[in-house]
Parts: sequence; structure tokens; C-alpha cells
Amino acid sequence: MNPLSTHQVDRITRAITPPSEPWRQKARVRLDTLTKPLGSLGRLEDIAAQILAIRQETFAEPIRKGVYVFAADHGITAEGVSAYPREVTSQMVLNFLRKGAAINVLTALHRAELQIVDVGVDADFDTIPGLLHHKVAKGTRNMLHEPAMSDEQLAEAIAVGVEVAEDAVRAGQTMIAIGEMGIGNTTSASAMTCALTGATAAAATGRGTGLNLEAHTRKIDVIEAVGHKHFGRSSRPAPLDILRCVGGLELAAMTGMILAAAEHRLVIVIDGFIATAAAAIAVALAPAVQGYLIAGHQSEEPGHKLLLEHLNLSPVLMLNMRLGEGTGAVLAMPIIESAVALYTQMATFTSAGVSEAS
Amino acid sequence: MNPLSTHQVDRITRAITPPSEPWRQKARVRLDTLTKPLGSLGRLEDIAAQILAIRQETFAEPIRKGVYVFAADHGITAEGVSAYPREVTSQMVLNFLRKGAAINVLTALHRAELQIVDVGVDADFDTIPGLLHHKVAKGTRNMLHEPAMSDEQLAEAIAVGVEVAEDAVRAGQTMIAIGEMGIGNTTSASAMTCALTGATAAAATGRGTGLNLEAHTRKIDVIEAVGHKHFGRSSRPAPLDILRCVGGLELAAMTGMILAAAEHRLVIVIDGFIATAAAAIAVALAPAVQGYLIAGHQSEEPGHKLLLEHLNLSPVLMLNMRLGEGTGAVLAMPIIESAVALYTQMATFTSAGVSEAS
Repeated sequence: MNPLSTHQVDRITRAITPPSEPWRQKARVRLDTLTKPLGSLGRLEDIAAQILAIRQETFAEPIRKGVYVFAADHGITAEGVSAYPREVTSQMVLNFLRKGAAINVLTALHRAELQIVDVGVDADFDTIPGLLHHKVAKGTRNMLHEPAMSDEQLAEAIAVGVEVAEDAVRAGQTMIAIGEMGIGNTTSASAMTCALTGATAAAATGRGTGLNLEAHTRKIDVIEAVGHKHFGRSSRPAPLDILRCVGGLELAAMTGMILAAAEHRLVIVIDGFIATAAAAIAVALAPAVQGYLIAGHQSEEPGHKLLLEHLNLSPVLMLNMRLGEGTGAVLAMPIIESAVALYTQMATFTSAGVSEAS
Repeated sequence: MNPLSTHQVDRITRAITPPSEPWRQKARVRLDTLTKPLGSLGRLEDIAAQILAIRQETFAEPIRKGVYVFAADHGITAEGVSAYPREVTSQMVLNFLRKGAAINVLTALHRAELQIVDVGVDADFDTIPGLLHHKVAKGTRNMLHEPAMSDEQLAEAIAVGVEVAEDAVRAGQTMIAIGEMGIGNTTSASAMTCALTGATAAAATGRGTGLNLEAHTRKIDVIEAVGHKHFGRSSRPAPLDILRCVGGLELAAMTGMILAAAEHRLVIVIDGFIATAAAAIAVALAPAVQGYLIAGHQSEEPGHKLLLEHLNLSPVLMLNMRLGEGTGAVLAMPIIESAVALYTQMATFTSAGVSEAS
């Protein structure tokens, strides 16, 4: 285990405490005084109580939302595991900066601040403004043959996420969404799912951005071989080993951001399969992180369902999406904001003079 | 059958044509050029294509949203079918006007215009501003003993909905949500579900706003007796007979609004069990209405699932809500707006210089 990454991770995981149960309870009591049948707001009541437990404040000010898209390339693309060529990662980063991608449209519509973080794209972006420049390497190595990252790269990538989270806190953000862009990264997420949950490669592997049947079969074989190479008969590899050997630079940065965001009591909305894989590593390192997570949606990738069950998270949305970029997380934000607004703004039975149930 | 209501309904049903398939196809073609994997926006792509097919325009201007809450009382409350006393209907109308209810919070947050329509509340609201005054009667009759409405009341209530829809069109609204407030109205919705789908009273009856087990059993018995009284062995009662005998004034107005909204090519977001019962009557009268409907959510009421399946509608949200007022429909609006914004604002592969899948 790498002393650099374990040192930083240890410091953060020790600092994370679960959301406040007294605040959650207080929120539940207030929810039952509002002018609606008991429990009739369903999931929104759970979300409101969770957010009060996380934030431990009464939301005099609106939630301030940040969205972070971490981009990186993957050595495993040499094995033909993606329907899109590797250069799409860098092309999509440029599309984000020109505001042409789905995540740009959604963050503009729902008034969230969007940041694109280059943590490992195989392109030179040095002179391009509007991008957070945190490149650790020009992509990972091919994990079919060697660990995706070195110890130092893993530590650096995690540190990127921690730094970005601390900037979000300084900017006054209280709710963040975490998304990604990286051709090949569903292969990492599937390999991570197998290592974390014990699922077979066949169960944890989907068609990513649109593989045909033959390529899908090849992808399953690659993921099985990757797991065998790095973890052999180990039934419980250490979380940081999973991240280093079969993860990715964006996945490591996302893990770092999720850990630091939980430390700072931010509400963390996770997006799809890849973001959830990073969250699962964070929870494996510090179980209290789970209480800070809201699963924005459940994607079409079969491994996502496995990971959500593993994390005991229920998705806010199920819209059969499989796009990434944070899109599913941002779409859930208006629902989450609705829960908080209902909690803070509805009249009570007493204040409104409405009769209660018999 | 009442000549008044059949005449008006016949005129409208003849005027309703299905959404445009060429526009839907055109939308599908454009969706496949946008910078995302094919089909990866899932349900949002279906929604965007449906809305283009309905509106037959390219959305140079944002969607303008109206929310209509129809309120009325129900004679069946004499049978103890609700957890709340009858006067809660009028108390909640006052709560709506003072902006204290859940629907007020949600329409303010999501920037939709809210109108409350008194179509049959058992209270005198004559001097109260901010309410659309369309009272047909002070509630329905007890449908356990006689038809809930007379022919004339049914015709008047439907006409209220038609008038409100035409006002929405004149106000420039392009998407409407339809909700309700009426203590006792899940009993009507359950009786309507049985008559429309052939479901048993036990299968179509839930706990409404929170009945205990004993009261729930009594409610099932009431609904079974109501169905037997009005429809006896008739396996396919006429839709307007169902509405008149076991519906309600707000349900009739909602049916009228849905019919007229479809005629005028508005996007119609339906809320929970009661709104869907009204929509099911509208579809029974004019099958083309189905193409204008988006099911905002699926509520906890078991009959709602039956009706959504009957209408072949898939809910946008599943949040275990059972509040009514239009809340589930308004919560779906940011998702629906997202679909349209993605359709109109995303870059294409060509314009963004992004490589396509192999």
C-alpha cells in the first residue's frame, strides 16, 4: 500500500462522522406537522430529513449547487472495450467548454455551477481556459497487463479530488453532483464492481455507450482477465488496491472528492455507474460516507444496480439513461431542492387552521 | 345519457387528432445527431419526441407552465371513507390561497402558474379573491344511494374544465399539470377504476390519506356496493355514466380540461390516482387523448398502477407519494423541461467535432 495515499486518506476517513441523527429526528417531527397527510410526500420526506441531518441547519438560504465532471483516459481502450474511439474523451472536454454537451444544458437549466476537471486526459489542454488543470498523467496504463496507476499517481489523483472539494466548500456550495467523462471507464467500473461485491464479470458488465454483442462478450472476457490478474484468489482486495489496479484517474479523483465532501458535510449527489463505483470505494474506506450520498438515478448499466444495492442506496430517478457526465445527478437536483423547499416553506396544520386526521 | 354533456363532449372528441408522427420521427432523427451515445438519454428522448409531436414547433421559446387544482366535496364522505373530515377540502382551499400548501411551494420553486378552481366545495367562497369561482354544487350526492351528479351537473362541471383549458391556451401556456383537492375522492377514483378496468374493489382501493385497516375494509365494501348499485352486471358502462354516477365534480372538470387541452395540443402532465382516473375517462371518450398525456408520477395508491397500465403510461417519477394537489405532476416538470432543453440546445457531433461510434 502506498504511504502517500494511505496517509491522506487516513486523515480524512478519521474526520468523517455520520450525519446527525438528532437533526434527522427533528426534521421528521416537523414534517409531521405540515399540511399534508402523514408521510404522503414519500421519498421527499426521507430526502429532506437526510439533508437536515447532513447540513444541521434550517436552510435560511437556498442550496448552492456545484457539478464536477472529472475527465481522464484509460489504457484499457487498447483492448477494444468501447464503442467510441479514445479521442472522444478530449473532444467531449472541448464540447463541455463550448457548452454543447448534455451536462451544460442541464446545469444551465437547473442553475448549478459546472466545473470540468482534467485529471488524466490524453491531450494537451495547457492553454485552454475554463478547465481545471489537474492532469496527473495522460491516461492510465493498460490494466490487462499492469496496474492502471502507480502508487504516486493514485495519491495525486485522490488529492485532486480533495482539493476540488475544498474549493467547493470555500465557494459556499452545499450540494455537489459528481460526474465523469472517460472513454473506457465503464470497464473500470465493472472491474471495480466485481472486486467490491464479488459479482461475476458477466453480471457486472453492460454495453457501455453502445457495444454490439460480440464486443460486449470481449469486454466481459477482458474484465474477467483483469480481475484474475490483479486480485487472483483474493476475495476481499483492499479498496485502494482496487482503485489503483483497475480504477482510473477520474475515479480516484472522484473518490477523493466524495471523501472530502463527506468530511465537510456536503450533500453528495452521485450520478451513474462510474460515479457510484468511486462512491463505493469511498464507503469501503469510510462507511460513514454512505449517509452523505444521494443516488441521482439508476442507469441502464447492470453493474449500477448491483452497486446501488451494495451501498443500500435507492435512486431518485429511473429514466433508463446511460450517459454519464453527471447528467443523472443534475436531473435529480430539482427533486432534492423540492424536498428542502417543502420542508422549509409549507404551512403547519396549526398555522393554516386545517383539521388533522382522526 | 345527458344531451348537454354528450353534445359538448362529442364536439371536442371529434376535434382531437393524435400527436404528429412525422414530427416525432423528425425529433428522433435529430436526437441521434446530438453529442451523446445513441439512445443514452433514455426516457428523456421519448419525452422530447412526444412533446415535439404534440406541439409541432421547435421551441424557440421556453415552455410556459400552468397548474390547475380542481376542488370539490363528495357525498360519499358520509360513509366514513376518509381519514380526514370533509371540511378539510375547504380549509385546504384557503391554505392554497395563502400559499401554505405543498403545491404552492412546488409551483413557486419550478416557476409554474397556479390556479385553484372551486368546482364544488361545500363552503361559501364568494368574496374570496384569487380563486376561480366555478361552483356547480356544494359537493356531490352520496353515490352509495344515488348518482353522484345529475346530468346537468355533469355537463356544467365538464364545461368548467373546458373553459379553464381555453383560458390556459389564451394565456399562452403550452404545458399544464392537473391536480385536485377533495376529501373522499380516492373513493370515486377507485370506483371509476373498477368500472373502467374490471378490477375488483379490493385491488383498486388503497388507504387514501391514511385509513387504518378497519376503515380500509369498510371503504372496499362501500366501493363494491357503489359499483353494484350503478352498474350491476354491466361489464362496460359508458364513460360519461361512470363519471356521473361514481365520479365527482372536480373529476368531471378535470376530464373536460384534459379533453379540451388535447384538442388544443397542450402537453398534459397528470398527477396521481384521481387525475389519472379523469384522464382515463377522457381517453375512453377519445383514444387520441392518450398521446397528449405524460404521467408525472406513480402514487402509492394501488389503483393508480392499474390505471397507468390501463392507459399504457409509464410514470416519470416513482417517489412513493400520495398527496395529490398536482404535486407529483409539478415535480415531473423540471424533468420534462430538461428533455426539451437537451433536444433544442445540445451540440451535434458535426458541430462539436466529436467522433461517432464505430
